[in-house]
Amino acid sequence: MPAERPETLRVFSLNCWGIRFFSQLCTQRYEMIGELLGREQHDIALLQEVWSEKDFLFLKRKLSSSHPYTHYFKSGVFGSGLAVFSKHRIQDALLYKYSLNGYPYMLHQGDWFGGKAVGLVIVDIFGLKAHVYVTHLHAEYSRAQDEYLPHRMVQSWELLQFVRHTSCGADLVVLGGDLNMHPQDLGNRLLRSHTGLRDCYTETDTFDGCEDGHTLIAANHFSKKQDLIPFEKGIRIDYILMKGSQKVSMKCESLSTTKGPVANKPYPYSDHEALTAELALLHSEDSRQHGSSNGEDSHTALAVSEQMDVVAEARAVVKEGLCQTEALRDKATYLMFSGLLLLLLPLAMAFLPCFCSFSTLGLLGAVCMSLLLSGAMLYLLFTTHIKVLKETDDQMMLTSNDLQTKLTGCRLSGSPSSDGSPELQPLSPFKREE
Amino acid sequence: MPAERPETLRVFSLNCWGIRFFSQLCTQRYEMIGELLGREQHDIALLQEVWSEKDFLFLKRKLSSSHPYTHYFKSGVFGSGLAVFSKHRIQDALLYKYSLNGYPYMLHQGDWFGGKAVGLVIVDIFGLKAHVYVTHLHAEYSRAQDEYLPHRMVQSWELLQFVRHTSCGADLVVLGGDLNMHPQDLGNRLLRSHTGLRDCYTETDTFDGCEDGHTLIAANHFSKKQDLIPFEKGIRIDYILMKGSQKVSMKCESLSTTKGPVANKPYPYSDHEALTAELALLHSEDSRQHGSSNGEDSHTALAVSEQMDVVAEARAVVKEGLCQTEALRDKATYLMFSGLLLLLLPLAMAFLPCFCSFSTLGLLGAVCMSLLLSGAMLYLLFTTHIKVLKETDDQMMLTSNDLQTKLTGCRLSGSPSSDGSPELQPLSPFKREE
Repeated sequence: MPAERPETLRVFSLNCWGIRFFSQLCTQRYEMIGELLGREQHDIALLQEVWSEKDFLFLKRKLSSSHPYTHYFKSGVFGSGLAVFSKHRIQDALLYKYSLNGYPYMLHQGDWFGGKAVGLVIVDIFGLKAHVYVTHLHAEYSRAQDEYLPHRMVQSWELLQFVRHTSCGADLVVLGGDLNMHPQDLGNRLLRSHTGLRDCYTETDTFDGCEDGHTLIAANHFSKKQDLIPFEKGIRIDYILMKGSQKVSMKCESLSTTKGPVANKPYPYSDHEALTAELALLHSEDSRQHGSSNGEDSHTALAVSEQMDVVAEARAVVKEGLCQTEALRDKATYLMFSGLLLLLLPLAMAFLPCFCSFSTLGLLGAVCMSLLLSGAMLYLLFTTHIKVLKETDDQMMLTSNDLQTKLTGCRLSGSPSSDGSPELQPLSPFKREE
Repeated sequence: MPAERPETLRVFSLNCWGIRFFSQLCTQRYEMIGELLGREQHDIALLQEVWSEKDFLFLKRKLSSSHPYTHYFKSGVFGSGLAVFSKHRIQDALLYKYSLNGYPYMLHQGDWFGGKAVGLVIVDIFGLKAHVYVTHLHAEYSRAQDEYLPHRMVQSWELLQFVRHTSCGADLVVLGGDLNMHPQDLGNRLLRSHTGLRDCYTETDTFDGCEDGHTLIAANHFSKKQDLIPFEKGIRIDYILMKGSQKVSMKCESLSTTKGPVANKPYPYSDHEALTAELALLHSEDSRQHGSSNGEDSHTALAVSEQMDVVAEARAVVKEGLCQTEALRDKATYLMFSGLLLLLLPLAMAFLPCFCSFSTLGLLGAVCMSLLLSGAMLYLLFTTHIKVLKETDDQMMLTSNDLQTKLTGCRLSGSPSSDGSPELQPLSPFKREE
């Protein structure tokens, strides 16, 4: 192993809550975040909700010596909010914008306007090829009645597909971000089981942070207390996940979170807690001796079976979303046709003996036209959503069939496939929480 | 080499021109296409512009015995139009929708409504892992004044990034589709040089088809003759590209195109010509002896230098697109503010001594509101486009810097990098046409 290769990689992740003129004390908090990053000098810092490019540029200037390599992912109207700061050279970047991300008419929620996405940067860490992903999924506004569950499920699927298909040449994989999902939520299980990514919180040797690793806590000055009901202590929705390769296996040596208030500062860094992971890189020339798939062959049939179960659960959610969206499209169709029918009214009146003025007719016409156009735009929107949901279901079905084939292969031969394909990487068993 | 592994792979690609109720003789032509595919039994058929799912389902039924594995990529309002029919098992599918794809208000062009994308299917060909891509890029409506050039450039970039980052584990790579670019157009050079994909037309041992491989020809009954000006003979915009791996190297043994009229049929299959490639798969246990990168090390510095030049050219186009889109956003801003100012007029009139009716005020208000809303929506649209163009430029800059680092490495050591990264695959020299 070359001497200069690092033994550990320090990774930081924080949802910065950076909505200018809305998030409290935004400028002051970016000052604090900049100070923290400059002082701590993590190898890689993954930030979410850096909605304003000005704030990114402020951090970029402030961290120009500690983190000379940066990428700010631009997408949607406001941007993706995703930013990466790295001590090591960023070779390449790629962005995948999620196909489903809320509704444009939910102006007060704003998710649709931020082009939520997963960003990938390929970082050269002394000759090791690290694929580092940063993402932020759609918010959960109500856990009891979560109308965005299918959207988040599609996002989870697209995230796992993106990671699975772009991480094949990586020596190590790190994913950080705000998944807006609890640890055992379906989307989270789907992501972990199909990518083989392991959750640093459940894997770490030592942990220093909020109880149960919570990243949204009542003790945080900025957190909205109603978001935590019925989880009084807090919830864990921010993650650092990791995966090694045949060349390098990874181990989380320590994980820490901030705990709300910051010493010597009047307020926390954000409404979310920050995560810092120290990841040990165990180099190995021969994966069959020390690699991540070491001694795991006996588990593969079980793992494939688990993957199948979780995909089946996810498909049910997507199908439910499809029904809901088809109902919404039907409503849009009614609106459109109501507008069209009502439009006949002023047209008919124009040909009747004139009992109302040109202006009245015009106003009526304008109202009908606006109904018609609104209906048409909503129809287009929901049609697009239906296409995305169907595509996701089709992809899930393909994966499900493929897993079935592998499972049959496993049962026949005791190993899932003979082609050594990277799909087998996800078969590493992962710890279950709680 | 196992006996059952195929020696050749037969790939078909056709833009089906399947706009129901608009494309001439659509149903009859799908009958003909179905017959052709059923008879020819290509390993993989890649279709574009299958806009209607009904037509896909018709083909699926018709080809259920010859091509039992299919995937129809769903995206946008009308769909992506992309379909794959395969004799071999499709293990997985992934879709990347292009971020920039025309304007929604160009209703008569319709590109925006078809969610143009690149689709990937992973096909198991007797244990070989084939990554098969199908795509369709934005149309070129005017070569002299091509306002969509930046859109197609972004699409080319996203296509190459997607192929580069998802093809790493493949034994062989095939890309087919309608690129809407001539062979030496910048986007095409960018794609080939950065992915290492080789054009079957320039690589083939034998060719049987239209002069210069044209796929849009005057002799085709359906082709619009004004699209061909000033290229009287025709243009080549449909392609089959290929790339081997360390395990398998690929060679195009023969390529053919249809030539407009079809024997014993009253009309052609489509307004485009179809392509059929026979690709020889040369299995190799040791790439260093027979692989695709065989003996090419001496060319890498030159290839890196060429890649840098072509990225620089592409960045210039993206920057030009950025200026144009910023100007469009400025116009949208004026429209929005005009609507807002005019809205003050009926509001002021409402408080003045009443010289006009409620209806007149309402009509005026409605006109102003529609101006304001149109302006706001266009502003959002162009802001999104600006974000995409900036992101593309940033990614291109990263790649450019990375190539510069590699070039320095090449010149110092005579080889571009020591980590054996898959980025080096694109360094294989490619033939230049004409």
